[in-house]
Amino acid sequence: MTLSAEQVTRFDRDGYLFFPSLFTPDEIARLVAEVPTIFAEHRPENVREKGSDAVRTSFAAHMYSAPFARLARHPRMIEPVKQLYGEDVYMHQFKINGKMAFDGDVWQWHQDYGTWTNDDQMPEARAMNVAIFLDEVNEFNGPLMFIPGSHKLGVLEAGHDTTTTSYPLWTIDHETISRLVARGGLVAPKGPTGSMILFHGCLVHASTSNLSPWNRVAVYLSLCAVSNHIRRFKRPGYIAHRDFTPIECLPDDCLLVDYPVPTPWKHGTPAAELQGMTS
Amino acid sequence: MTLSAEQVTRFDRDGYLFFPSLFTPDEIARLVAEVPTIFAEHRPENVREKGSDAVRTSFAAHMYSAPFARLARHPRMIEPVKQLYGEDVYMHQFKINGKMAFDGDVWQWHQDYGTWTNDDQMPEARAMNVAIFLDEVNEFNGPLMFIPGSHKLGVLEAGHDTTTTSYPLWTIDHETISRLVARGGLVAPKGPTGSMILFHGCLVHASTSNLSPWNRVAVYLSLCAVSNHIRRFKRPGYIAHRDFTPIECLPDDCLLVDYPVPTPWKHGTPAAELQGMTS
Repeated sequence: MTLSAEQVTRFDRDGYLFFPSLFTPDEIARLVAEVPTIFAEHRPENVREKGSDAVRTSFAAHMYSAPFARLARHPRMIEPVKQLYGEDVYMHQFKINGKMAFDGDVWQWHQDYGTWTNDDQMPEARAMNVAIFLDEVNEFNGPLMFIPGSHKLGVLEAGHDTTTTSYPLWTIDHETISRLVARGGLVAPKGPTGSMILFHGCLVHASTSNLSPWNRVAVYLSLCAVSNHIRRFKRPGYIAHRDFTPIECLPDDCLLVDYPVPTPWKHGTPAAELQGMTS
Repeated sequence: MTLSAEQVTRFDRDGYLFFPSLFTPDEIARLVAEVPTIFAEHRPENVREKGSDAVRTSFAAHMYSAPFARLARHPRMIEPVKQLYGEDVYMHQFKINGKMAFDGDVWQWHQDYGTWTNDDQMPEARAMNVAIFLDEVNEFNGPLMFIPGSHKLGVLEAGHDTTTTSYPLWTIDHETISRLVARGGLVAPKGPTGSMILFHGCLVHASTSNLSPWNRVAVYLSLCAVSNHIRRFKRPGYIAHRDFTPIECLPDDCLLVDYPVPTPWKHGTPAAELQGMTS
């Protein structure tokens, strides 16, 4: 899978690219089948919604679930990102976000690179966000909203919101959001299960709550250019990975064929990965 | 304005009718201009969002603001409802819902007639909900969501939710909503300022939070058939009106011409209207 010159230009201008139905329903079905088991585990990687047992975000399933370990090495996802960066990438973060029916709560307006630079000392915004839809995303189940072009402004000032939801986030003030939306508008890519979005680490995004009876489970991961690896391990390793080994792709049919993959955290997360390190 | 036979049939089947751009931008502008003054008042009719000064709902503005008093007598709204009921109507409830930019919070799944029968002893579901858009409603600013056909099931069991938002509501459980949506789907009418929705008192509806920088102010009112007036005054009069006088329409241009209208609560709400009465 190679991006066209038009796609590269569009990514630069808008800060995202949308690939509806990039993976087939058959390919996605094996991932979906794993999710209830992963969400049922009470391990530190699973963050639950405020006032509910629903999983808000589940980190690092690719370290213990073979189907997700294969997804993490899928060429349809890895190759375009390597093309854009002109070098190898490693997995900076891997998570499954629940946004479950009825319980899925908001994510306030934020940029991801703000956290990566402040907490992880990632030198540049050369880490790509990837969203892969495990459920259909429609107007009712809390789609991701982007402000096109907002990635051009670099890291915006942000405040640490520790009260709105169960997961603390560096969020951007209302006046800035109004100004950015007046300039770039808003979009919310919607599509079938198996769709993929690539979006820039500085693209401002949010998502509303999910009041619908439809789950909106999605994998969100961040692929960092290897030379741009993080310099500080303040956050736990399961949130901001410390293994900068270049990802080696599996064959294109790796969601249908059980290629062997390592699942080193299958019997538990190593103690060193559960905490931050201050240097 | 007369509903066609097709519209009458569709209302019976779906439980709502949508009229995009029924009022012109000029007609709506004079209402919009009044809203900041109304929302700035700290009177008991104004309910604010949890943890914010933004107005969630503002009751009975038609009793003290002349432009809203004229809207409350508009033939484009009153006539179709009289046609459907075959009799005169009175104003059971009149409110402006803020759903303000960034601060507008959710309304959980509910039916309005549940409250009207339980609290107000309204004999039948012969009161029509009317929504009039004072702002454009789009996919980003928390549109009203309906489950088409759900009005056919009468009053559904509900639990009193006093914690989610600042306004207590009889809400419907998740299992029931899932079942109704599997049967009828979901719709969210969106359109320009000046659009109107008529919807049945038993139609199940909700709306999500508004994270966008665009207000989504709308007038919601309930027109009750006069013979179906409420029997109990448990709720304050500014929430559930006790004056069953048939509404007399003004001319069709009443949002542009300053016809005289009474504004009896201009200098304050009568004490008797501020509280419930138990008999």
